Amino acid sequence: MPDSARPPRELDLAVSTVIFALLADRSGNTSRLWLPLVRRIRDPFGERWALPGGWAAPTESLVGTASRNLLETTGLAPTYLEQLYAFGDLDRSPTGRVVSIVYWALVRPEQAEQAEDSENVRWFPADELPLLAFDHNLIVEYALWRLRTKMEYSRIAHAFLGATFTLTELRHVHEAVLQKPLDPANFRRQVESSDAIVRTDERVTGGRHRPPRLYRYNGSIELADNGPLAHHQI
Amino acid sequence: MPDSARPPRELDLAVSTVIFALLADRSGNTSRLWLPLVRRIRDPFGERWALPGGWAAPTESLVGTASRNLLETTGLAPTYLEQLYAFGDLDRSPTGRVVSIVYWALVRPEQAEQAEDSENVRWFPADELPLLAFDHNLIVEYALWRLRTKMEYSRIAHAFLGATFTLTELRHVHEAVLQKPLDPANFRRQVESSDAIVRTDERVTGGRHRPPRLYRYNGSIELADNGPLAHHQI
Repeated sequence: MPDSARPPRELDLAVSTVIFALLADRSGNTSRLWLPLVRRIRDPFGERWALPGGWAAPTESLVGTASRNLLETTGLAPTYLEQLYAFGDLDRSPTGRVVSIVYWALVRPEQAEQAEDSENVRWFPADELPLLAFDHNLIVEYALWRLRTKMEYSRIAHAFLGATFTLTELRHVHEAVLQKPLDPANFRRQVESSDAIVRTDERVTGGRHRPPRLYRYNGSIELADNGPLAHHQI
Repeated sequence: MPDSARPPRELDLAVSTVIFALLADRSGNTSRLWLPLVRRIRDPFGERWALPGGWAAPTESLVGTASRNLLETTGLAPTYLEQLYAFGDLDRSPTGRVVSIVYWALVRPEQAEQAEDSENVRWFPADELPLLAFDHNLIVEYALWRLRTKMEYSRIAHAFLGATFTLTELRHVHEAVLQKPLDPANFRRQVESSDAIVRTDERVTGGRHRPPRLYRYNGSIELADNGPLAHHQI
């Protein structure tokens, strides 16, 4: 539900996007999931924070509208963008029936750090959100659940990482998304026994005596398997 | 995209439903997935078969429209009904932009057998469909893929079975959905080692010397885990 006045109609269709990035917290130590929100300037829910979104455009694909929302809000192209769910409860907007088709996107830390806050766009930690406009708290909760579920059976964590990474970096992604610490030795064993990760000959550059080894994802495995709709993804 | 004339508008929202049942084929031996289709009586795609559906109603929830479609087409209430995907490609309807929010439903054989064919409603085997209206072949293909994926990690097969069942009946569901034969001994071992299935003290009644044992699903495991949206399911 975007922030512009519209003539009353029977049923409106909007597209919104939940954008996640994994960023170090203020102490610089642990990573957390963050997402950008937009401050509404009009009623309903004027002044409240909301997911970036806009009305579905007759001449634009749904995923096209979602990408445009994301570009306009953060200046970024996503690493991963997928349809999440269509929310259509009768009472979700006080000013008329609105169905919102929601996408979710993942961006890398170095991308998110380029995106600057402005007066009306601000990044929030996903587990410390204020009361949002409409049913957007439920939408974020569902997007988090989908991210956690998906990380268990696909290589979606890759969307948060660079081309190569250490096992510690990979574990930090999993810890931040699952919001719980993981045993390093068990994690290493589990990851090394799967065929999703490939050990490279490179190590982290730097002055350390025994710098950690770099890994990469096995490119022959899809980021996320979307079956016959693979061509619908960006 | 339902079958009624509408005034031209910028963008229309429809709700369609893919309904699967597992039925014995004409030989009575093997089970196959079947789905009911509706013959269109108007252009575009007049005379072609299509998924049951209707325009989204301003005063009805999306899942409410899907249930109503299902009731009107088959006379049935589904065992399982879930949102599948919103299809919104620019060129999917030749007469204007239509976004379809698609649900998928599973019904039990004894329910499907009550639903009678009529001149304009007919059940087809899922793997032998004619060329359907709009992008409905793609939609069915995606629904089949989702069903197969979901069967691997949830107890969705239950939606096709009664309260109790034999291991052979359960294996036939998996074989029909996956469209491949499974080794009975391996299947038995795999199912018995999971906590999804509970052995009962009952056996199939009948004159056989050693009638097969009946099993039931473990009620403490959800049919399909939909996380924070569990209350959106029927």
